[in-house]
Amino acid sequence: MEPVSHQMMGYDRAITMFSPDGRLLQVEYAKKTVRQGSTAIGLVCSDGVLFVTDKRIIDSLIVPESVEKIWQIDDHIGVTASGILSDARVLIERAQVRAQQHRVTYDTMIDTLGIVKDMCELKQICTQSAGLRPFGVSLIVGGIDNDGPALYETDPTGIYFGYKACAIGESETEIEAILKKQYKESLTIEEGFKLCIKALSKVLGKDITSDRIDAAYIKTSEKRFKRFNKQIIEKTLKEAKKEK
Amino acid sequence: MEPVSHQMMGYDRAITMFSPDGRLLQVEYAKKTVRQGSTAIGLVCSDGVLFVTDKRIIDSLIVPESVEKIWQIDDHIGVTASGILSDARVLIERAQVRAQQHRVTYDTMIDTLGIVKDMCELKQICTQSAGLRPFGVSLIVGGIDNDGPALYETDPTGIYFGYKACAIGESETEIEAILKKQYKESLTIEEGFKLCIKALSKVLGKDITSDRIDAAYIKTSEKRFKRFNKQIIEKTLKEAKKEK
Amino acid sequence: MEPVSHQMMGYDRAITMFSPDGRLLQVEYAKKTVRQGSTAIGLVCSDGVLFVTDKRIIDSLIVPESVEKIWQIDDHIGVTASGILSDARVLIERAQVRAQQHRVTYDTMIDTLGIVKDMCELKQICTQSAGLRPFGVSLIVGGIDNDGPALYETDPTGIYFGYKACAIGESETEIEAILKKQYKESLTIEEGFKLCIKALSKVLGKDITSDRIDAAYIKTSEKRFKRFNKQIIEKTLKEAKKEK
Amino acid sequence: MEPVSHQMMGYDRAITMFSPDGRLLQVEYAKKTVRQGSTAIGLVCSDGVLFVTDKRIIDSLIVPESVEKIWQIDDHIGVTASGILSDARVLIERAQVRAQQHRVTYDTMIDTLGIVKDMCELKQICTQSAGLRPFGVSLIVGGIDNDGPALYETDPTGIYFGYKACAIGESETEIEAILKKQYKESLTIEEGFKLCIKALSKVLGKDITSDRIDAAYIKTSEKRFKRFNKQIIEKTLKEAKKEK
Amino acid sequence: MEPVSHQMMGYDRAITMFSPDGRLLQVEYAKKTVRQGSTAIGLVCSDGVLFVTDKRIIDSLIVPESVEKIWQIDDHIGVTASGILSDARVLIERAQVRAQQHRVTYDTMIDTLGIVKDMCELKQICTQSAGLRPFGVSLIVGGIDNDGPALYETDPTGIYFGYKACAIGESETEIEAILKKQYKESLTIEEGFKLCIKALSKVLGKDITSDRIDAAYIKTSEKRFKRFNKQIIEKTLKEAKKEK
Amino acid sequence: MEPVSHQMMGYDRAITMFSPDGRLLQVEYAKKTVRQGSTAIGLVCSDGVLFVTDKRIIDSLIVPESVEKIWQIDDHIGVTASGILSDARVLIERAQVRAQQHRVTYDTMIDTLGIVKDMCELKQICTQSAGLRPFGVSLIVGGIDNDGPALYETDPTGIYFGYKACAIGESETEIEAILKKQYKESLTIEEGFKLCIKALSKVLGKDITSDRIDAAYIKTSEKRFKRFNKQIIEKTLKEAKKEK
Amino acid sequence: MEPVSHQMMGYDRAITMFSPDGRLLQVEYAKKTVRQGSTAIGLVCSDGVLFVTDKRIIDSLIVPESVEKIWQIDDHIGVTASGILSDARVLIERAQVRAQQHRVTYDTMIDTLGIVKDMCELKQICTQSAGLRPFGVSLIVGGIDNDGPALYETDPTGIYFGYKACAIGESETEIEAILKKQYKESLTIEEGFKLCIKALSKVLGKDITSDRIDAAYIKTSEKRFKRFNKQIIEKTLKEAKKEK
Repeated sequence: MEPVSHQMMGYDRAITMFSPDGRLLQVEYAKKTVRQGSTAIGLVCSDGVLFVTDKRIIDSLIVPESVEKIWQIDDHIGVTASGILSDARVLIERAQVRAQQHRVTYDTMIDTLGIVKDMCELKQICTQSAGLRPFGVSLIVGGIDNDGPALYETDPTGIYFGYKACAIGESETEIEAILKKQYKESLTIEEGFKLCIKALSKVLGKDITSDRIDAAYIKTSEKRFKRFNKQIIEKTLKEAKKEK
Repeated sequence: MEPVSHQMMGYDRAITMFSPDGRLLQVEYAKKTVRQGSTAIGLVCSDGVLFVTDKRIIDSLIVPESVEKIWQIDDHIGVTASGILSDARVLIERAQVRAQQHRVTYDTMIDTLGIVKDMCELKQICTQSAGLRPFGVSLIVGGIDNDGPALYETDPTGIYFGYKACAIGESETEIEAILKKQYKESLTIEEGFKLCIKALSKVLGKDITSDRIDAAYIKTSEKRFKRFNKQIIEKTLKEAKKEK
Repeated sequence: MEPVSHQMMGYDRAITMFSPDGRLLQVEYAKKTVRQGSTAIGLVCSDGVLFVTDKRIIDSLIVPESVEKIWQIDDHIGVTASGILSDARVLIERAQVRAQQHRVTYDTMIDTLGIVKDMCELKQICTQSAGLRPFGVSLIVGGIDNDGPALYETDPTGIYFGYKACAIGESETEIEAILKKQYKESLTIEEGFKLCIKALSKVLGKDITSDRIDAAYIKTSEKRFKRFNKQIIEKTLKEAKKEK
Repeated sequence: MEPVSHQMMGYDRAITMFSPDGRLLQVEYAKKTVRQGSTAIGLVCSDGVLFVTDKRIIDSLIVPESVEKIWQIDDHIGVTASGILSDARVLIERAQVRAQQHRVTYDTMIDTLGIVKDMCELKQICTQSAGLRPFGVSLIVGGIDNDGPALYETDPTGIYFGYKACAIGESETEIEAILKKQYKESLTIEEGFKLCIKALSKVLGKDITSDRIDAAYIKTSEKRFKRFNKQIIEKTLKEAKKEK
Repeated sequence: MEPVSHQMMGYDRAITMFSPDGRLLQVEYAKKTVRQGSTAIGLVCSDGVLFVTDKRIIDSLIVPESVEKIWQIDDHIGVTASGILSDARVLIERAQVRAQQHRVTYDTMIDTLGIVKDMCELKQICTQSAGLRPFGVSLIVGGIDNDGPALYETDPTGIYFGYKACAIGESETEIEAILKKQYKESLTIEEGFKLCIKALSKVLGKDITSDRIDAAYIKTSEKRFKRFNKQIIEKTLKEAKKEK
Repeated sequence: MEPVSHQMMGYDRAITMFSPDGRLLQVEYAKKTVRQGSTAIGLVCSDGVLFVTDKRIIDSLIVPESVEKIWQIDDHIGVTASGILSDARVLIERAQVRAQQHRVTYDTMIDTLGIVKDMCELKQICTQSAGLRPFGVSLIVGGIDNDGPALYETDPTGIYFGYKACAIGESETEIEAILKKQYKESLTIEEGFKLCIKALSKVLGKDITSDRIDAAYIKTSEKRFKRFNKQIIEKTLKEAKKEK
Repeated sequence: MEPVSHQMMGYDRAITMFSPDGRLLQVEYAKKTVRQGSTAIGLVCSDGVLFVTDKRIIDSLIVPESVEKIWQIDDHIGVTASGILSDARVLIERAQVRAQQHRVTYDTMIDTLGIVKDMCELKQICTQSAGLRPFGVSLIVGGIDNDGPALYETDPTGIYFGYKACAIGESETEIEAILKKQYKESLTIEEGFKLCIKALSKVLGKDITSDRIDAAYIKTSEKRFKRFNKQIIEKTLKEAKKEK
């Protein structure tokens, strides 16, 4: 089935429509937006979960710290995104409120999957109702709850899957190829971090700088969202460049 | 009547429209979405109902347990789906709430058909009202109530039929052909499970692994939704491969 | 007036529009949907009303009893339908509620025409308001009230007529031809049932089986909706085949 | 100005639009629907108002009494219609409620013009608001109030005129020609009835039967809506056929 | 700028749109509707205001008195219209209610301009909001308030101007030419009436009859809306025909 | 960038759309409407603000006093407009209510800029929301508040600027050229008035009459909106014609 | 991917649509609007934040002080904008209310990022919901809060970044090139002001005058929004011209 004929027929110009071969084209285009976003990686490690992302800062006048690619949802849950970041913010702020409400209502931490399901419910609505476009963003949600560390990837459709390791954004394919070869469940956060930096370093080449990288982790033992500081990022990056 | 002319006329671009030959094309396209989903099978057995599905996991980094293709609605009712899984979730979560409300209100378990009718009411609305697209998902709902085991298949139109055995998704036709030949009402859940695994094994060929398979059952005597554990799935799969 | 030119002009793509020759094309297409539905027959007999329908079951794995083509609205009123059965359900469930409300409010049974008018009111709205498509279903409503037995046919427009005998669905024309020749007001339910089975047998040929047939009646003396049991259906079918 | 060019421009595909020459095409098409309806006649007679209509029943299985073409709005007001009868029902049921409300609120009978104005208000709204199509029906409302007998014809625009005698529907032109020649204000209801039957007989030719005719009157002296019984219709029809 | 190119571009098919040269085409088409309406004339006379209109009755079965072209809004204010008369009714009934409310609220008569402004407010809304078409009617509102006699003409845009004498409808141009030549502020209602009848007589030729003419006046001294009786209309018409 | 290509692409047919080169075409067309309106001039003088306008009356039957081109918003604020005057009225009546509310709520006079901002807020909404077209009118608002005299011009976009002197409408360019040469901040209202009349006289040529001119002023010392009487207008016009 | 083909397909004519290559064209066009706006610059200085803008006044009759390009949101936060200024006003007035509400509710000053996030939330909604177009404006928000001086740029998408120095509007590229070369974090507000004036002077050439320039700053030590007075602007401009 060639996409061109669909475009001419108009099946992709009204969001709540199926094409004759059963596709929701607006949702598929939204996925393309994601693949043009800057790269984000998530890893389940032996001692927690890890997020490493490219902030893709190329303007030297930008304050690197002001560019967020990893957000904290609650003490024990973080998220990274690729695609339209203002779309991501809508979902993330909603998740932060949900987590807070859960604490207040039940006096316990919300589990990671609960946050994911709630985000995906809103994403699904935007693929079925007229008057709203699908969210142009994929997210990697990771957290530590009573079941231990978990990592989920959600796409514009509102579908989610649990992953041991995953990547989204422009270098998704290359990074996932690297992860499939080198990821092991026994990796510590520290080792995982090195793996991710090396992978990013490979796909970004000489464009990579410590300013472009945002990285965070949640240790199973601590259940506390923490960011890597600049020194560690820089040091790891230097090592990665050497090893290449 | 050739579908091409309809497409050019635009009858399939507005969901609440009949084509000149009396078809609702958007609903028919939604059914195509279903036929592209991964396969799901339901069986009424002599001692309960059975669900066996292909999870179609091909990415080794996915956590197989995180991929759901069979869901529990209540102790005594389960469901499997094929098509857009985020659409399925909307219907399933609604059904879970309905079942819960029924327990609280009447202090009895809801009957299987009640759950099915409620799902189909929402599906019908989405084929008649502007501003909403049809649900792109078929479901097999099975349960044990006072009338014993029952199994229903619902399509995007909101129509449902009771089945002794049925399949939905990409291998629907092949699986149903096998079922028509080999299904008997006297099959036990165990025997039915072997039949389903053999059928899936046939259509998936060498792609099949125990990780791809999700299976659950509800015994008439227990009225409790239970999943098959990995060992049994693996063992049965091995046997099925041998017998082939 | 050739329909093709209308199609090209777009008069049939917006439900609330008249074509230049004063037709509502969407409603006419909905009637085509009805003519593709499985056949349903209604008869006023000397001792009550009778419904006989083809369930058009061709899949041997379907549970025949699960397929409904005749529904009870109240003790004294029944209905059968042809077209989109999920559309029919919306109208029927509404009618069941209306009948129940009438009993509670006035402590008497609702009359058959009251049920028909209420259904047609909703049907009419769906032909005049934007955002809703016409109902793709015709219904035959029959009942026994203080005025005795009565039978009404309603179409997608929301128009209804009283009939002594009528048929809807794919074999409508053939069945009505038979009825016009052989129907007499003096027929008993039993005799009418034989006539209907013979008529269905003629149009369905060798495809007919007792599993495909749904039949029900309401006796004037009882005012109770009752279904024919399988034995009687089978016996009558056998006789019909012989007589042919 | 040729209508064809309008059609191609699309001025007739959105109800709330004027064409470049200042016409509301959707309303004009709705009038065509009326001209395809079965014929209805209204007469102001020296002793009351009279309605005579063709029910256009051609199916021998229809119960003639079930087909309504003349409706009572209140004791002293009746109405007949031509066009989409399910549209007519909406207006008539509204009028019946209005008449009832008037009785309850003011303890007097509503006057004929009050009923007409209220119907026309709704008709006008449907020609000016998006999301609703014009009513595809013309009505002849007749009644006896304190000002004596009165007869009004309303069209899909919501315009009304008082008439001494008028006809709507497929034979409108022929009947009105006859009325213009033979109608006199001095005609009694009986004489008017004969005139109408003769006129219908002329336009329907041999198709006319007493079953097709619905007729009713309200005497100034009685202020009570009454239907002609079948015997009188048959007798008058026979006489009319002889005289022809 | 040629109008044809606009039509092809579609600027006239969505009411809330400006064309590239800054015109609201739907409103301009609505004005064409007005110019096809039957003629209406308003005059400020030395002793009050005067309305004279053509009712354009051509069907001899119509009851002439039932055809309204001049309406009373309050004792001291009247109105005549040209265009879609069912549109006019909406505005007039609203004005009658406003006048009544003013009396009740302030215990004084509403001034003529207040009525005009209120009508024009609604007219303007219908040229700016989607979902409503412009009113296809112009009105001449005349009244006697504390500032003496006043006459206003409003068009479909919702613009109004005060006039000494004005005409709307099909013969607008011819009548205004006559008025410009022969109207003097010193004319009495009686003299003005003769002038109007003569003017109508000129444009309607032999088609004019007293049945077609509706005429009313409000004397400054009385502040009471009064209609001319048929005798006076007939007499004046006869004189006008002689003088021609 | 040629406007023709935009028109064909349809960017100007949906009000809430940007064209590929970042223009809101519907708003630009609305500005064209303004440039076709009759001319209006505003001046800040040494002793107050001044409004002088062309009423463009060409029909001798119009009552010149009934044609408003300058309106009082409050004692200390006036406004004139060019474009669709029924659009202007909506904004002006809103402003009058706002001014009144401010007096009641704060017991002080609203400042000129407050009125302007409120008008512009509504204008902006009509350029961003579907279902409403932009206002087809520009306004010159002038007033005396605690900061002294001020004059603002607002366009259909909802943008406003403070001016010492400005003109809108068909002769905008010519009048502004004259103002740029001859306007001085030291002009008194009387001198400014002469300047404006001379300017209008130049652009209107022999068409100008005192009936066409509306003029008003607010003195800083008085804070009272006052209209020039006809004698002064006539005298000044005569002088202007002589000087030419 | 060539933009022309998109335009012809219509992906840019419905705001909530993705194009086949995953772009939101309406948002991209809105960004073009911004690039046509007059230039605005923001700087984080060693002793506070600084805003310098071109007011692009070319009409000598405009009151320069009336043209706002920098607005105060609260004592400690200011903002400048480029694009559709009436769009900017909507966002700014909302921000002013938010800041006020924060003071009242929490008795502390809102932080700069809080204001930015709130503006961007509304901007995002306008890119995802039908019936609203994206805001055609970028803003530079700067403020001093407990974290010291901060400067954010937001675009029509609702995305924001922290900047040390940034420019928006027609000379964005040239100004940013200058800033990248000459901006240092150690610059004082006074030095930064000179840099900005020099940069503007370069891009505007001889068109620049002190009337066209609006400039404001907030000192870290004061947390008070203050405007540069005309004398300083003039003096700095003179120096800048000399140095060129």
